[in-house]
Amino acid sequence: MTQSTTPAEDLVFGLTRIIDLPGLTGGALGPEDIAAIIGEADRYSREMLWPQAQAADHHGAVYENGVVRTPPHYQAAYKAWIEGGWQGLAAPAELNGIDVGGQELPQALWMAVSELVTTGDMAFSLCPLLTAGAIEALARFATPAQQAEWLPPLVSGAWTGTMCLTEPQAGSDLSQVRSKAEPDGQGGYRITGQKIFITFGDHDLTPNTLHLILARLPDAPPGTRGISLFAAPKLLLDGSRNALRCGGIEKKLGIHAAPTCVMLFEGAAAQMVGEPNRGLNAMFAMMNAARLGVGVEGVAQGARALALAEAYAAQRIQGGRPIDRHPDVARMLAEIRGITLAGRLLALEAGAALDRARRQGATEARVALLTPIVKAWCTDRGVDCANLGLQVHGGAGFIEETGAAQVLRDARIAPIYEGTNGIQAMDLVSRKLLRDGGAEMRALLAEVRAADSRLLPAAEALERVTAWLLDRGQRDPAAAEASAAAYLDAAGWTLGGWMLARAAAADARYAPIAGFYLARLLPRAAARVAEIEAADALLALLPAA
Amino acid sequence: MTQSTTPAEDLVFGLTRIIDLPGLTGGALGPEDIAAIIGEADRYSREMLWPQAQAADHHGAVYENGVVRTPPHYQAAYKAWIEGGWQGLAAPAELNGIDVGGQELPQALWMAVSELVTTGDMAFSLCPLLTAGAIEALARFATPAQQAEWLPPLVSGAWTGTMCLTEPQAGSDLSQVRSKAEPDGQGGYRITGQKIFITFGDHDLTPNTLHLILARLPDAPPGTRGISLFAAPKLLLDGSRNALRCGGIEKKLGIHAAPTCVMLFEGAAAQMVGEPNRGLNAMFAMMNAARLGVGVEGVAQGARALALAEAYAAQRIQGGRPIDRHPDVARMLAEIRGITLAGRLLALEAGAALDRARRQGATEARVALLTPIVKAWCTDRGVDCANLGLQVHGGAGFIEETGAAQVLRDARIAPIYEGTNGIQAMDLVSRKLLRDGGAEMRALLAEVRAADSRLLPAAEALERVTAWLLDRGQRDPAAAEASAAAYLDAAGWTLGGWMLARAAAADARYAPIAGFYLARLLPRAAARVAEIEAADALLALLPAA
Repeated sequence: MTQSTTPAEDLVFGLTRIIDLPGLTGGALGPEDIAAIIGEADRYSREMLWPQAQAADHHGAVYENGVVRTPPHYQAAYKAWIEGGWQGLAAPAELNGIDVGGQELPQALWMAVSELVTTGDMAFSLCPLLTAGAIEALARFATPAQQAEWLPPLVSGAWTGTMCLTEPQAGSDLSQVRSKAEPDGQGGYRITGQKIFITFGDHDLTPNTLHLILARLPDAPPGTRGISLFAAPKLLLDGSRNALRCGGIEKKLGIHAAPTCVMLFEGAAAQMVGEPNRGLNAMFAMMNAARLGVGVEGVAQGARALALAEAYAAQRIQGGRPIDRHPDVARMLAEIRGITLAGRLLALEAGAALDRARRQGATEARVALLTPIVKAWCTDRGVDCANLGLQVHGGAGFIEETGAAQVLRDARIAPIYEGTNGIQAMDLVSRKLLRDGGAEMRALLAEVRAADSRLLPAAEALERVTAWLLDRGQRDPAAAEASAAAYLDAAGWTLGGWMLARAAAADARYAPIAGFYLARLLPRAAARVAEIEAADALLALLPAA
Repeated sequence: MTQSTTPAEDLVFGLTRIIDLPGLTGGALGPEDIAAIIGEADRYSREMLWPQAQAADHHGAVYENGVVRTPPHYQAAYKAWIEGGWQGLAAPAELNGIDVGGQELPQALWMAVSELVTTGDMAFSLCPLLTAGAIEALARFATPAQQAEWLPPLVSGAWTGTMCLTEPQAGSDLSQVRSKAEPDGQGGYRITGQKIFITFGDHDLTPNTLHLILARLPDAPPGTRGISLFAAPKLLLDGSRNALRCGGIEKKLGIHAAPTCVMLFEGAAAQMVGEPNRGLNAMFAMMNAARLGVGVEGVAQGARALALAEAYAAQRIQGGRPIDRHPDVARMLAEIRGITLAGRLLALEAGAALDRARRQGATEARVALLTPIVKAWCTDRGVDCANLGLQVHGGAGFIEETGAAQVLRDARIAPIYEGTNGIQAMDLVSRKLLRDGGAEMRALLAEVRAADSRLLPAAEALERVTAWLLDRGQRDPAAAEASAAAYLDAAGWTLGGWMLARAAAADARYAPIAGFYLARLLPRAAARVAEIEAADALLALLPAA
């Protein structure tokens, strides 16, 4: 493929030229700073993670005698993570006069760094991602005393954080949470209950971990309005063990080196974070940043799939030439490259919208609209790209030694966690679209229209089905749900094209891949648009309510 | 979902009402016979394979001390396979006056039985599939003496067969085969070389295995015109071991219980099958039936994904009701069901075309056209369905215990082996379409047009791009290759819709799912059609030849 750029080059380009981080930070962060930080993150990923990511998968997380061990080299990788100051990149520097230790750099920059780290080893990357989520929630909802106690070790990376939401009966439906929090009479609480699917719930990378837990107070109303947020450290202030432990880890399809724990809270000492019965609010604040982070995981797995497939295709000779010269293989490589670049830039666009809301007081409507699209579209496409990358390898792709299969196994979790992609689609339609009558979406589509004439048919089709959904969906929630996933997908393909068109306009090196995407991949949006308007064909299959 | 039918019911319906097997066999096979055979195959699969398919995956094939062990329960399952007479279902009864032992039933019926067996345990099913391929090749190309020696034990299942094609440097490009066959001076040959990716190359289910091997004679010309086909048994007539052995098995993403062997031929005694230097012809004769069989694997994995996802979604309560009542989950289930049913009927249609060619002297053009579409479209869709089925399970889908992840891992090989799906697409365009000037495709599309007005836009679009490919592809092979995969995919979506429209016309129980597919899934054909005509956007990325 001609004039190909590296992910690090794309990220520097995107941060500098597309979302204008120098402008967004009022010049505090110059193009050279961005290039230096991205270069360092790339080096960290290539040196500390890439070379041993397959070994990490093979070793996996191991549960023995009640504790979890991660792959041996994770110790050095995590130490370097702390020493590089990476965890605090986008964390607050100071809160309420307390030096928290963060660098307060933009969220978009953190997402770019995350992509590189995740491309190196997705399982490893989940630990810092969850810590970042905990920092986010505590920075917004914890008391100054709690922040002083917990934020410095989390921001430095000396502690890690978890999100303890899911229970066996409470997955997408968190109203079913049963874990209990009873006052201990001294201002604290005792948590009892079982949580499942807790990523890095136990591990050997840091001595302490702060668990953020959804649980119910004794007098809490049923449903979502009776859930509060609590924080419980693994080790108490005196160094003794809190009454919580890992009951086992799951045997999973992928991310083998990331322990997915059953966590047992057996009267664990905890503090409430935020107001009683308002726990879901706090958790969602944390989940929104995490959802952008998971979208980035999809992009990163596309990048990993591309790197492996390009290297294989350049040296595998069949029919007298490297297979990357065969048009059908070139097609697969171009699809991975175009989709991954589109997702990369779209994720940065969402990060920039978040930064503009936080730093410049811009409305949160834009980032709220983009978040479910980035989460779901980028992760679905991450699985597509992993599949394509595996296919480029032919028979070798099915052999674990090659590494291509691991990308598929790892990428496959991202459409599921942090709210399944079906939940994201309903969030987009019922919360983001219907609540403002489609105003933000129309504003966004006006920008898309103006960017490039090749986007017009897709933008017009989306405008039409947006109106359809606002009308029909308002009256008929089942129809909105029936078409939500197709709507999100159509929006994702269209916005991906928008980002590539902007990239091509800013730098001619991106024109060929943008041309490929707009001509060959963007028509997929139209197929999903047709699906939206045919909601009744699905509803006909459902039993009457 | 309303009025849902089981795979066995669909198969009986398809064989009886859609492809009219009673008519095709001149009444020799009545509707009751078909129902009885499908019922028995379904029972075999449910009793002998389904209950232990996850255990088989977990145990896997084990290579120790130079031999391969399969999961312990495979012994009983294979014994029941032999005792049921299943291997000989579609095999010849008599050849050249020799009683071969087969039942000579239609290929379409064999494919239906294969679907049910593969749904029970894909890894297990590969052993009979490969034996069937060996029977096919020997029935067409072996001498009467060879047939008398080898066919009876293969047809009974007492021996198994393999296809030894691939070598490390020779994958899709078999012209690179280096294995050597030297005359032993007594009419036989000695084979030397290494073959890889040999499914069930060694195992413990039968004492003997007949290997069909591509190798070169000493004086053979280079390239594909210098490859001959040989047969070498594991055990010689006197019971001693032939000079061939399994050098190891691969650690794979899926089909763990099916050993994928490195086979080492160290002067193995062999006989030539067919004429010198015409080995690829014989191998392709065998591969064509095998390709339809692999297409059926895609259907079967869709069926397995659907069974697991429907069972999970019926009992998983979120938001106060089973999740199969949530429109977005119902959408995923309907997609799996519609796609799998379409693939099931399309595979039977191809099987019937093969049977009509063999039994009634009909042209082979129809089965030749449908084979690459069934192989590639059904297996790509099998992966899609496995992905959807996993997604229905939410977080549980990522945990191996649930079984949904295994379906994805197993299904993922089918787009790769027996000719990658990229190879299928080129076969469709360059061999099937360009060679007859599109005549058979136009005849097929005329039938599609006539079946249901809802198919008109898709059929017309396909006619348009068929003409485009015939014109441009004839002049510019790179353009044909660049658009071949999209063309095959567009044809698959359209023909799948054709099959469902015919099913709905024949039985109103199929009308709702046909309506769903035609309204919501068929528009995907149009997206791929747009891609075909944009071949230049891909070619622009390739370096000049």
